[in-house]
Amino acid sequence: MTTANPLKIGFCCPTIDAQPWADALAHKLPSAQMHIWPGSTESLDYALTWSPTQEFFDAQPRLKAVFALGAGMDSLLKLRLPESLPLVRIEDGGMASQMQDYVTHALLRHVYRFDRYEQDTRTGLWQQYAESLPEHYPVGILGLGELGSKIAERVRDLGFPVCGWSRSPKVLQGIRCYSGDELPKFLASCRVLVCALPLTAQTQNILNEKNLSLLQSSAYLINVARGAHLVEEDLLKLLASGHIAGAYLDVLRTEPAPVDHPFRSHPSITLTPHIAAQTLMQPSIAQISEKIRMLEKGQAISGVVQRERGY
Amino acid sequence: MTTANPLKIGFCCPTIDAQPWADALAHKLPSAQMHIWPGSTESLDYALTWSPTQEFFDAQPRLKAVFALGAGMDSLLKLRLPESLPLVRIEDGGMASQMQDYVTHALLRHVYRFDRYEQDTRTGLWQQYAESLPEHYPVGILGLGELGSKIAERVRDLGFPVCGWSRSPKVLQGIRCYSGDELPKFLASCRVLVCALPLTAQTQNILNEKNLSLLQSSAYLINVARGAHLVEEDLLKLLASGHIAGAYLDVLRTEPAPVDHPFRSHPSITLTPHIAAQTLMQPSIAQISEKIRMLEKGQAISGVVQRERGY
Repeated sequence: MTTANPLKIGFCCPTIDAQPWADALAHKLPSAQMHIWPGSTESLDYALTWSPTQEFFDAQPRLKAVFALGAGMDSLLKLRLPESLPLVRIEDGGMASQMQDYVTHALLRHVYRFDRYEQDTRTGLWQQYAESLPEHYPVGILGLGELGSKIAERVRDLGFPVCGWSRSPKVLQGIRCYSGDELPKFLASCRVLVCALPLTAQTQNILNEKNLSLLQSSAYLINVARGAHLVEEDLLKLLASGHIAGAYLDVLRTEPAPVDHPFRSHPSITLTPHIAAQTLMQPSIAQISEKIRMLEKGQAISGVVQRERGY
Repeated sequence: MTTANPLKIGFCCPTIDAQPWADALAHKLPSAQMHIWPGSTESLDYALTWSPTQEFFDAQPRLKAVFALGAGMDSLLKLRLPESLPLVRIEDGGMASQMQDYVTHALLRHVYRFDRYEQDTRTGLWQQYAESLPEHYPVGILGLGELGSKIAERVRDLGFPVCGWSRSPKVLQGIRCYSGDELPKFLASCRVLVCALPLTAQTQNILNEKNLSLLQSSAYLINVARGAHLVEEDLLKLLASGHIAGAYLDVLRTEPAPVDHPFRSHPSITLTPHIAAQTLMQPSIAQISEKIRMLEKGQAISGVVQRERGY
């Protein structure tokens, strides 16, 4: 099925295989044409992006909207793009529940010492340690956006004492919410800190020695946001001093992490390769195709980024 | 504070340090006398036990009730005890939520491949695997007693498809409940099997080659019950054939596990040293002291074991 002027939709996803995504979108929008960059010089109506390049956008004069295939908008926002071009994020698309599960696993693993028990039993031991329960571990969620608030609710439902911090004030049931300049007070109340912030000029390097030192002693850090939130050498310093007991990190400043990155072999750091919230193809493509249909009818869509705040 | 005929309460807990438990109970029942076995020949009113011995009971003619400091009654039931002597289990006492958390951790770890990612990142890789989500892993809970039903509810709330099997029919919201001779049908519907059964003559060796072969292929086994439920060599056989992908086990037939036990070094088996549900001193002692008070007033108490069914 084709029309006189078919929609032209481009994929600028240099680090992943875009073909399955293009096939899935073609299935939802059968009259549209799909173009995978590089390899096409068509002038496009819409673009779907994953770690996009400036070069792609420089050759596109008439884009109507750009869809990011992930929750974080930082890789798009660092490019030079027309001010009027709407940048659209994935809204959930299965990411919140994955991130809830990621944090649940990391948190229970630390609190109940499963990592230690697993290692012990491999090395010939069979030893039980003193009880260590969720109620002993106040957890703080840094960032209470779409993902952070869902993480906070899950952690609350697991029986942990929970608080949260966000730029502007929020209200979440059963969760003490701090905001703005209450950051030091918030940090001082946490034994576990979960970073779920968007990456902006204000939040870059927020996990630094000064802030992390405010956490309760023997604190634990979980980062599911962006590598650039964390000053990596500051974490190493605080692990060496013992103020921080360990960290479970899904993101690093450079990804893939260099083979000799010191975090890879650090006994108190656990890494995963940026998998805490994989963009699920089916719900994401369904969402994007529906938004393209609405835009074509001149209707407003949700999920458009406010560039001045950075998310 | 003493009375003319103080209650005499004994502790037969040869494998743990009973003193803190005796101190905690003395705090709740200040007029009672605490006696730790061996070392006392007093004739006792009540006994608190953990892996008790026949010798202890042979010297006790007038016990009014025996309290087990754990959920499993198998170590008491294998002894020769007067038929009329009430054997009392701990009712929850914080164990259900620990076991929910234990199964949650083991389940998420397997489904999201956190074990593999952690290992990958240590060995220099930074690779993402295809999506693997709770909805792809139907979980079956073997045993829907006090602990099993709580586990089933948690797994359901995490978004897994869940079913359960128990000796007698049960009803749990959102959980398909099988019973009695429907065991094969139940097993065929599971990709993950969680054993939460009491250990009885009927359930011993229930995790054998015949039953485990009925699970969906690439199944995963979690055992939080008793080591004697599992025929260990059958698990090794099914891991070798690939029918079972892995196992997370808190219990073994012999505990502590021998240093050269093959499970300790098996790449697809993860062990923890019987810590899935530690008996918490404060809630357990509060519960036992209240039950002793009720028995002294001639009131009926809950949690008395039905010996003919074995739990």
